[in-house]
Amino acid sequence: MTDRRRVTVRDIASATGLSIATVSRALNGHATVTEATRTVVNEAAERLRTGSHSFRGTVFVRCPYILTDYFGLIVSSIAETLSLHGRQLVLTAGEAAQRTPLLADLSGRQGVAGVIVILPPEPGSALLELQGRGVPFVVVDPRTTLPRDIVSVSAAHFAGARALTGHLVGLGHRRIGVIGGPTEWLVSDARLAGHNAALADVGVLPSPSLLRTVEPTTSQGYVAASSLLDLPTRPTALVCFNDKVAVGALRAALERGLRVPADLSVTGFDDLDLAQATGLTTVRQPLQEMGRMAVTLLIRLLDRHELDALHVELATELVVRTSTAPPPSDHPVTRSG
Amino acid sequence: MTDRRRVTVRDIASATGLSIATVSRALNGHATVTEATRTVVNEAAERLRTGSHSFRGTVFVRCPYILTDYFGLIVSSIAETLSLHGRQLVLTAGEAAQRTPLLADLSGRQGVAGVIVILPPEPGSALLELQGRGVPFVVVDPRTTLPRDIVSVSAAHFAGARALTGHLVGLGHRRIGVIGGPTEWLVSDARLAGHNAALADVGVLPSPSLLRTVEPTTSQGYVAASSLLDLPTRPTALVCFNDKVAVGALRAALERGLRVPADLSVTGFDDLDLAQATGLTTVRQPLQEMGRMAVTLLIRLLDRHELDALHVELATELVVRTSTAPPPSDHPVTRSG
Repeated sequence: MTDRRRVTVRDIASATGLSIATVSRALNGHATVTEATRTVVNEAAERLRTGSHSFRGTVFVRCPYILTDYFGLIVSSIAETLSLHGRQLVLTAGEAAQRTPLLADLSGRQGVAGVIVILPPEPGSALLELQGRGVPFVVVDPRTTLPRDIVSVSAAHFAGARALTGHLVGLGHRRIGVIGGPTEWLVSDARLAGHNAALADVGVLPSPSLLRTVEPTTSQGYVAASSLLDLPTRPTALVCFNDKVAVGALRAALERGLRVPADLSVTGFDDLDLAQATGLTTVRQPLQEMGRMAVTLLIRLLDRHELDALHVELATELVVRTSTAPPPSDHPVTRSG
Repeated sequence: MTDRRRVTVRDIASATGLSIATVSRALNGHATVTEATRTVVNEAAERLRTGSHSFRGTVFVRCPYILTDYFGLIVSSIAETLSLHGRQLVLTAGEAAQRTPLLADLSGRQGVAGVIVILPPEPGSALLELQGRGVPFVVVDPRTTLPRDIVSVSAAHFAGARALTGHLVGLGHRRIGVIGGPTEWLVSDARLAGHNAALADVGVLPSPSLLRTVEPTTSQGYVAASSLLDLPTRPTALVCFNDKVAVGALRAALERGLRVPADLSVTGFDDLDLAQATGLTTVRQPLQEMGRMAVTLLIRLLDRHELDALHVELATELVVRTSTAPPPSDHPVTRSG
């Protein structure tokens, strides 16, 4: 357990989502730091020191999905950051929540000062209605394109996917299988667009026969990868919607005696703990930072600050590991067995 | 999206944690069903139909860990079940919460009717103090043995681990490496005891040189497995604390050119989605049922019902997949390379 007296600038920075420079400027009372920022820093420092609470209104967080590693990491960092801002977190989570419309879910809750909705399944119109209620809210991972004035935080899916497929075509891959996410998700669309853009850069058109779309689970990834690997002419690489899907693909390759990356390259997305251990080449999503940023933006809304960039897109990062290599020279390979 | 009119007996059963038989008896107004149960069933049915809320007091859920698949699944099912009982969920989550003592975390929160604490890092004394406050609470996954009258829900770790190692010794394994969890956790102790019991059944004493303990992450599993596989005389099987640790072990085996299960058997624990796709032999933990049961017990406390069994242990189940087989005949194998 940590000594509750010792609090470093780094602690406060990572806790508040502010830069280390800003935090130390705030602590040293620089004139360049706004009063609001100074308050956040001081309160965070105090809370880190004492672990004390003095709640100033509740924030309702709605994540109508099972809290798997992906959603769980976002919600965890939202919880930690809200606590440092002295805000109580009221949570809706789990797929059953999708039976309850957003506004019905909000109704009857007392003292909700602000709302954070994660990957809302509702159409934009429901979000506009929420906005109409005058409740400050922030959308994390919007499923659909949002009106300019709805505050949202997401990751650079298009750029990340483009860099990933760019890496594969750079290695010489041209026949690339894609296991995409649910077609109604904006992120699925953005990642597929990034993939296709990288193909277009080398004059390759995407082939529908090489595309599968799945619910992003390991088991569905396994099934989709199996069908792609059993094609008469096998793809030399599989681009998977996320790391869990990719683990399913690795399994399908293993069962067919295919060596990764010698016979087949496989990529993920998210960079979960899992990707590191399976040696997946993937794209790192700043999941915790997304949670922190969502809270930071919401607090600014609650404090009636100006927000310049209403749609915040956090950078993703290509992480090259051992699951990608040039395609086998003897390619095209026909189905073995 | 689901049609909100259609609600099956199965929906209500899985939502309330009651048996299908009980639910239909309640719906058909059998005299054998208590009024309280009838109320829960009717309210759940109503909520499933309309998605409407009428909150009757908040439940504070404290899970001072990052919501990975494991904790996330428990919290998700707690959230879903509380919502069906018309209770609002206030959440503390993330490792930073461990800086705040349980009671300090509870203080300053308004209208908390009951508390659910998940794998509390606090000593039993803190829980007794909470009990002293007269706040109804339930402990999920207690870290240490609790006084008889503190209500807790956990899984049958000892029995599960014993069945798992029993499966391995049944296949002929005797030199079994163990990658255990943090020594201060009750579950680590229970699983290790179950493992040792199964060894004792065939007259084998556990060897300290074959034991590693880790924080249960894939990357630490990889490191621990590497050190076990690089022993002069390699174990023929690795029993891992959980599925994530086991995935790290699979990776370490792969890097050493060891075929699983021909050269090495590997087992996990939890049966996450991940285990299914990597073909792990593991032990299924009823994570969602643990969440439902915790809520059911708490609601009974809130309704001032008698609780017969204060320590509820839910059965675990051995799931045999393709990561376990008899040890290689040419064993003992000495370190290759």
